[in-house]
Amino acid sequence: MNYKMMGRFIAQILGIEVIFMIPALCISIYCRESAAIRGFSWSMVMIALLALGLHALCRKGKKRFYAREGMVCVGLSWIVMSLMGALPFYISREIPKYIDCFFEIVSGFTTTGSSILPEVESLSKGILYWRSFSHWLGGMGILVFLLAISSLKGSKGGYTMHLLRAESPGPNVGKLVPKMKQTAEILYVLYILLTVLNILFLLIGRMPLFDAVCTAFGTAGTGGFGIKNDSIASYSPYLQNVCTVFMLLFGVNFSCYYLILIRQFKTVWKDEELRMYLGMVLGSIVLITINIYGMYDSLGETVRHAAFQVASIMTTTGFATTDFDLWPSFSKAILLCLMVIGASAGSTGGGFKCGRALLLFKNMRRNLKKALYPRRVEVVCNNGQMMEESVLSNINTYLSAYVIIIIVSFLLISLDGFSTTTNFSAVLACFNNIGPGLEAVGPTCNFGGYSVLSKLVLIFDMLAGRLEIFPILMLLSQSTWKKG
Amino acid sequence: MNYKMMGRFIAQILGIEVIFMIPALCISIYCRESAAIRGFSWSMVMIALLALGLHALCRKGKKRFYAREGMVCVGLSWIVMSLMGALPFYISREIPKYIDCFFEIVSGFTTTGSSILPEVESLSKGILYWRSFSHWLGGMGILVFLLAISSLKGSKGGYTMHLLRAESPGPNVGKLVPKMKQTAEILYVLYILLTVLNILFLLIGRMPLFDAVCTAFGTAGTGGFGIKNDSIASYSPYLQNVCTVFMLLFGVNFSCYYLILIRQFKTVWKDEELRMYLGMVLGSIVLITINIYGMYDSLGETVRHAAFQVASIMTTTGFATTDFDLWPSFSKAILLCLMVIGASAGSTGGGFKCGRALLLFKNMRRNLKKALYPRRVEVVCNNGQMMEESVLSNINTYLSAYVIIIIVSFLLISLDGFSTTTNFSAVLACFNNIGPGLEAVGPTCNFGGYSVLSKLVLIFDMLAGRLEIFPILMLLSQSTWKKG
Repeated sequence: MNYKMMGRFIAQILGIEVIFMIPALCISIYCRESAAIRGFSWSMVMIALLALGLHALCRKGKKRFYAREGMVCVGLSWIVMSLMGALPFYISREIPKYIDCFFEIVSGFTTTGSSILPEVESLSKGILYWRSFSHWLGGMGILVFLLAISSLKGSKGGYTMHLLRAESPGPNVGKLVPKMKQTAEILYVLYILLTVLNILFLLIGRMPLFDAVCTAFGTAGTGGFGIKNDSIASYSPYLQNVCTVFMLLFGVNFSCYYLILIRQFKTVWKDEELRMYLGMVLGSIVLITINIYGMYDSLGETVRHAAFQVASIMTTTGFATTDFDLWPSFSKAILLCLMVIGASAGSTGGGFKCGRALLLFKNMRRNLKKALYPRRVEVVCNNGQMMEESVLSNINTYLSAYVIIIIVSFLLISLDGFSTTTNFSAVLACFNNIGPGLEAVGPTCNFGGYSVLSKLVLIFDMLAGRLEIFPILMLLSQSTWKKG
Repeated sequence: MNYKMMGRFIAQILGIEVIFMIPALCISIYCRESAAIRGFSWSMVMIALLALGLHALCRKGKKRFYAREGMVCVGLSWIVMSLMGALPFYISREIPKYIDCFFEIVSGFTTTGSSILPEVESLSKGILYWRSFSHWLGGMGILVFLLAISSLKGSKGGYTMHLLRAESPGPNVGKLVPKMKQTAEILYVLYILLTVLNILFLLIGRMPLFDAVCTAFGTAGTGGFGIKNDSIASYSPYLQNVCTVFMLLFGVNFSCYYLILIRQFKTVWKDEELRMYLGMVLGSIVLITINIYGMYDSLGETVRHAAFQVASIMTTTGFATTDFDLWPSFSKAILLCLMVIGASAGSTGGGFKCGRALLLFKNMRRNLKKALYPRRVEVVCNNGQMMEESVLSNINTYLSAYVIIIIVSFLLISLDGFSTTTNFSAVLACFNNIGPGLEAVGPTCNFGGYSVLSKLVLIFDMLAGRLEIFPILMLLSQSTWKKG
């Protein structure tokens, strides 16, 4: 294990975190929020000192980096970033317990959006900004981000492939252009462009600038932290529809946008994952609209709420315009299924991912056929290309890990005595990086009632879900830390 | 597709069903229950006529039989058996709607034990006997049973391997002795022996003979139909403990009993699945006892209830001595997890099976290690033997199908508007062949409130769960019915 390299890497991450706290500090100063100013300035000093110390300690060392070191590094850096990112909440005393601060910022960086706060409007602007901004940072993956920065500096990117392999959400990303550096830049530019567009559309609807920026951060990262107690419910129908559209846009594989830019419309149109994603969104909206028809004043309002909630849950954002916990069971069941499936691979959304679910289904069908006709050769194709058996095997391993983690987490948090639905949906909501669950953790409630143990379990779930499970599991595996 | 062969096969099954209705008819005659006598005699005439007609139609034809024909045959014969087996309930008018009769007998043959009846004590003895006996028949697998019968007759068993491949619950069965015929006989003898022992132990506890026979049938098949409204609750503690022990015994891989008979104690002791099974049973009993301590009068009573419910759920029997829906969430969560995992492969129990879960976990761990050290060769071992990759791949396919079926079923039955927990536990209870779920389908409630569509979905789940999914999925697959 190349500890020195890992130390330098984490020191870099922390340095960047300090830089990204500057806007939040500026906002606090502008609004004269003394507690938040204290929170940010002390946090920045502490994090900077830690980064410098770590850098000094790990100055020399080999540059070689293996896959497992990449994985471990990704996992560790998210944990360290979150431990440090929680400091402003704690030092400003706006969230009294450190475990709650940690939960909140992990929820931010992993773009989950689950909160332990019963209400957010009493928070200072600086803290609100930092909370939403953590979504934006997390959304793109802090590591794709670092990758872009480090390639700009011209450093040798030899180990970045390993990192991205662990980070890339799903099986398709990163085959756009031959060089890693270019890929990162393209993704980065697309992400900023879409965010800016989102802010503009919100401003057109007369949303205040601060609200627009924070809401766009929450949308871009498919995070879901709002700055109002009722999430998006008090904004105008136009603004809600803008959110619906942009949530859906951020749930699409970013490769598709690149393909559109280079005018490969046909490839995009024929992308099976995109078709599945859009098909599921449309189908769910129609079914839920029929199911909840009569609960709202007009058909337009019904469709608006159905579309918003479907987009919010499917892309794992977690904004809400209405309390879907009051909807009939069929609609809730649809939302629970969307929670599990999640957004497209290569997007900022979480969950199991449409692409994976599709391949899982195709693989199952293939194996059934093989049982019927043992002598035939059957392959699994995606977008016309044959899938390698190792990819299919990895997806199956992913499913096993996914199911096992859900079962164990569910067991552990059941110790707190909440209802079965609450506990089960809490695990799904955190593990799939959605935000709200059902019943006691529904859209109008929060995760504050859980014990410290349960919060730690849910934090683990959020991190594991966001980092595609394996980097976090590896941190726990004995053989990772063995010499060899 | 060799339709003639399939027709003959199903005709044989129906013939056997008629024969097995004779005891139920005799009991009805002995108890002078005119409705039940009418029900059984008319049913027997109708089934016999159908069997004869089918046999006459399919008299000639090739003897060759492929895997897919075996699979389809298993699936079809269970459905036809159930359609016919439901007739006595319907003709005697003891259950008014045919869909309910069908649900009840499928629940019987699949050894599920879910009931649509709000109370059972008003049923006639003959019908009660038939209901419990269906568990016993289903438990061993009507096809292992037929296999034994047909080998006794000396017919050529060339196609039986394919059938058993579809029927055998789990990856380990049938490697005991070289010949299929002998295997079937050994299983058959063991099954009868254990059932007789069970009846004897119940009689020693002064249970009436009729009750003892029916309870033993429900235990042996790990089914769970009781003949009292409160299941096993009104029987003495001794009788409850006898049930606990025998439920656990019927949840063990039958291969272990054979190994004990031939004095291979060490192999049994080292069997990883057995260790996992017993470990989970003991662990769950301890955890639940601690969790519910104080709810019952004494520690003894607490342990008795905990052990009974754990045994009942883990072996997927579904008897109850207490309403576990009133237990705290942690205990309920443990029971939900046990529901999913289920009993050992090669037992009469249902669920995902301990052996499969173990291999799934080992495979996941292996693939994680492979990601850490890409150049190392890692294999998955079970009881010291290397597992073939195709077995592991099949288990993964099984998990995919398992998850997909649960999600789709859950969605469909949610249309009825019951709570999320009710619906989810109903699907788990039926699919894993357990019986009772939670809330509105809990141990003191029944499945009668569901719509016809939901009942059909749950019937599908019971059949799919009992037949290890694939034979039933194949009935739905287009390519099964294609020429080729």
